Amino acid sequence: MKIEIYDTTLRDGVQGAGIAFTQDDKLKIIHSLDSLGISYIEVGNFMAHAGDTEIFREVSDIKLKNSKLVAFGSTRRANTSIDDDSSFNEIACSDIEYVTIYGKSSLYHVKEVLGTTPEENLAMVSDTVKFLKSHGKKVFFDAEHFFDGYSDSPSYAVSVIETAVDCGADCIILCDTNGGMLPDVIGMTTAAVKSRFPDTVIGIHCHNDMGMAEACSVQAVLSGASHVQGTVSGIGERCGNANINTLIPLLQLKLGFDCINPDNLRELTHTARYVNEIANLAFDEHEPFVGGYAFTHKAGAHIDAVKKKPNTFEHMRPETVGNRRNIIISGLSGRAAILDKMTAVMPELDKHSPEVSKAVEKVKDYESRGYQYENAEASLMLLIYESMGIRRQYFELKTFKVVISEPASIKPDNKCSALIKIGVGDSEELTAAEGDGPVNALDIALRRAITRFYPEISAVRLVDYKVRVINSSDTTASVVRVLIESTDGVSVWRTIGVSVDIIDASWQALRDSVEYKLMMTHNNMIG
Amino acid sequence: MKIEIYDTTLRDGVQGAGIAFTQDDKLKIIHSLDSLGISYIEVGNFMAHAGDTEIFREVSDIKLKNSKLVAFGSTRRANTSIDDDSSFNEIACSDIEYVTIYGKSSLYHVKEVLGTTPEENLAMVSDTVKFLKSHGKKVFFDAEHFFDGYSDSPSYAVSVIETAVDCGADCIILCDTNGGMLPDVIGMTTAAVKSRFPDTVIGIHCHNDMGMAEACSVQAVLSGASHVQGTVSGIGERCGNANINTLIPLLQLKLGFDCINPDNLRELTHTARYVNEIANLAFDEHEPFVGGYAFTHKAGAHIDAVKKKPNTFEHMRPETVGNRRNIIISGLSGRAAILDKMTAVMPELDKHSPEVSKAVEKVKDYESRGYQYENAEASLMLLIYESMGIRRQYFELKTFKVVISEPASIKPDNKCSALIKIGVGDSEELTAAEGDGPVNALDIALRRAITRFYPEISAVRLVDYKVRVINSSDTTASVVRVLIESTDGVSVWRTIGVSVDIIDASWQALRDSVEYKLMMTHNNMIG
Repeated sequence: MKIEIYDTTLRDGVQGAGIAFTQDDKLKIIHSLDSLGISYIEVGNFMAHAGDTEIFREVSDIKLKNSKLVAFGSTRRANTSIDDDSSFNEIACSDIEYVTIYGKSSLYHVKEVLGTTPEENLAMVSDTVKFLKSHGKKVFFDAEHFFDGYSDSPSYAVSVIETAVDCGADCIILCDTNGGMLPDVIGMTTAAVKSRFPDTVIGIHCHNDMGMAEACSVQAVLSGASHVQGTVSGIGERCGNANINTLIPLLQLKLGFDCINPDNLRELTHTARYVNEIANLAFDEHEPFVGGYAFTHKAGAHIDAVKKKPNTFEHMRPETVGNRRNIIISGLSGRAAILDKMTAVMPELDKHSPEVSKAVEKVKDYESRGYQYENAEASLMLLIYESMGIRRQYFELKTFKVVISEPASIKPDNKCSALIKIGVGDSEELTAAEGDGPVNALDIALRRAITRFYPEISAVRLVDYKVRVINSSDTTASVVRVLIESTDGVSVWRTIGVSVDIIDASWQALRDSVEYKLMMTHNNMIG
Repeated sequence: MKIEIYDTTLRDGVQGAGIAFTQDDKLKIIHSLDSLGISYIEVGNFMAHAGDTEIFREVSDIKLKNSKLVAFGSTRRANTSIDDDSSFNEIACSDIEYVTIYGKSSLYHVKEVLGTTPEENLAMVSDTVKFLKSHGKKVFFDAEHFFDGYSDSPSYAVSVIETAVDCGADCIILCDTNGGMLPDVIGMTTAAVKSRFPDTVIGIHCHNDMGMAEACSVQAVLSGASHVQGTVSGIGERCGNANINTLIPLLQLKLGFDCINPDNLRELTHTARYVNEIANLAFDEHEPFVGGYAFTHKAGAHIDAVKKKPNTFEHMRPETVGNRRNIIISGLSGRAAILDKMTAVMPELDKHSPEVSKAVEKVKDYESRGYQYENAEASLMLLIYESMGIRRQYFELKTFKVVISEPASIKPDNKCSALIKIGVGDSEELTAAEGDGPVNALDIALRRAITRFYPEISAVRLVDYKVRVINSSDTTASVVRVLIESTDGVSVWRTIGVSVDIIDASWQALRDSVEYKLMMTHNNMIG
């Protein structure tokens, strides 16, 4: 059975704290969701301020393969004529084919929030749906606070839906606007509505205030809903909306519904990360299905079993959604993983070798100081090689000075400068560089100095740079962890630095990045 | 009805990526969970390596008001005698009263992972439970992979439970170890087990691989389980465990079960934050019930309604769980909130005043450059005052220089230095300071210089310092956002800085912090 997935990242998602999209961001997200095969993409509120409505003028220029774009707005205001409302006239004349209208379906809200009569609210619904239908639009009706309304005054809640259906609404979406409902109630109510309106497409729109947004959405689908609203990663106000990254694989792989083309399912992880990146959000690596940790195994016993028979400790194949299995090194399973890396260069070692104990102790010592090698395997390799006595010193740092004069916000052209002297054998190279901030200056100076001796470093560039304060109780003297991702166009590697001084932490990660590249080149090894 | 809450943050939580606790961390968490009123606290695996077992020797020294401590381990190994296993002998003789034993309940796992016979697995269960019972322990039996096992070979799965029950196990916990089950299946299976063993306490242990850990746990409770396992914030391997921060208020407030003393419920938000802090995790502000955004409202229409009648847009009172409502300023609702702040000093302004438009434009301009005022209301106040022309300049920055010579990791004693000259009227003060890293040096130098003119600054100290890379595509030249929380012992205020240069971003936030304090003191205003 087909389930329509309706994404509202660009509208309800924007209600989330810290979320804002430029016009360019919106277009990127629209094309990404279209590639994934989402049925409907709600692009904004046509009744909102200027920034939100710009997109509607561009609709005819947006060419999509799979998705339909939808405009969102409310019913007309109480005691006004819809013909006098310019935003309705504009959307009616626009090229957009689909419009979602939200209206009150709770008698309590009609009285307390709208401050109008039950009859006027019904007239607002009918006038709005009729107006848009008469202009040839497909109309989806979001019954706001439906579940609250249904439990207080079921007959009024149903009469609101009946009004929308009678006026030609193409889909009725039941909304748990406050997110306070449990799956059982959602399921029973949805089934009651579906049996009352068997020929109407029924949709579900849940919020996550009780951690139940996806469970409620699934229960609604099992009870007759065939249209599901949500956002990428559940981005949204308060605790967020239902998460389509979770709902799509769950409905499709676990329950056999047809949400998107099965081939597209492999794009899910990529799409989720891409949208989070555009939204400038730190991706939640614990996210079901698409998170970096979703198929990550740490405990020793698990790892052996997963290698033998993946289904023993994995509920599905990560590749199906474009994700992958990760085995991480940690205090609990570190020994075997460290041994793996050591036997690659010294096959004679086994788990009882003193070299292995020494490396494990060294890793533990660094971990206790805030280093985390789960996302910094290149720094881990260097540390293991160091403990084995085979870490080669490709260069020596002779001088290091970073100077910041006047904050950039006071004198914008005043760049930071870094001065570095590197020694290789008997030769020395002194370089200086200016940069946007001290880390940037240091990065440029270091690579400039090293390239004289090792030209292959010129191909290295940084892909990602992350900072995290890992102990903020001492405030500005807190310990800072820097993670750097580098590439030479072929391989990608990640390094780490930890220090109370962010410049020092950055230096460690930059130095490891360069050293790892040199190690790969001169030993002809790939990570 | 009483529901036992069983916390496994210190054992299953530690399986999560990046999670590790020192002995001191563990004690802090134990006391925090005890104050909250959690029934059982699983403190570690008594069969694991040294670091994990240390806690068991201290058990008799840990005085608790509400909670019982529990040791965790597996059944004896296949084809061995439990009497020969020193870890069993040690735990049997320890002061710990409760022991949880996990054992295989899936025939597939018995064969493929253990590689033993179904009969030997049953013997492992019975030997282990009997041994511990004969030493006077209370024994909880975790039936690992129970739901997978029950769907493949229900009779064998039930025979494992029957064995544990017959040998005297005090509670049987049904585990969805891989997190691949849906609430319906969990509910039906739990009901079947409960009807088969009506006199046994049945527990539930869920993982979040499908975003269903809490929904599944609730369904199990509604189907007869009266013991619920989970972790604070769902910390745990892959997508985490069931989140007790969600489960406790949901079961207690929404379904009427008795999990903890109702008075303690107000400690929930604090406990959740405290444990995350100890675990060195960035708290997920979108968490249901306890997150900073759980009762945060952004959209304009919502805010008016919530102020009038909280239940219109809130599913419960935030105070019940020790949380609070927040109204945040953003592009969508900014105008009214900004006007509120402006009329506090200029009551004659209204929403049509040009001053208000000017302030709104200014805030929007800064927001487009990466500033976020949701958590930096002190910087927002200064910006609004600036747009009104009433931001007073308490001091002038004349000279500013930060020098970093040699990374601290190379020369540990080599501190960074900062030099600052401040002018107030015709007087100047030049100060220099060393610090752990450039930001710390700058912080000390700035406050030392300012204190000469404004002694009240000596009472100000920083509570929190956060760094976030908000645009990492340009790597080391990325834009960095710094958030600082300051206090003078009475008020707390938060400021922000944004720049490609972390020193500059830190400078902006430090300067705003000092200026805000001066503004509060000299205008006799509190935030």
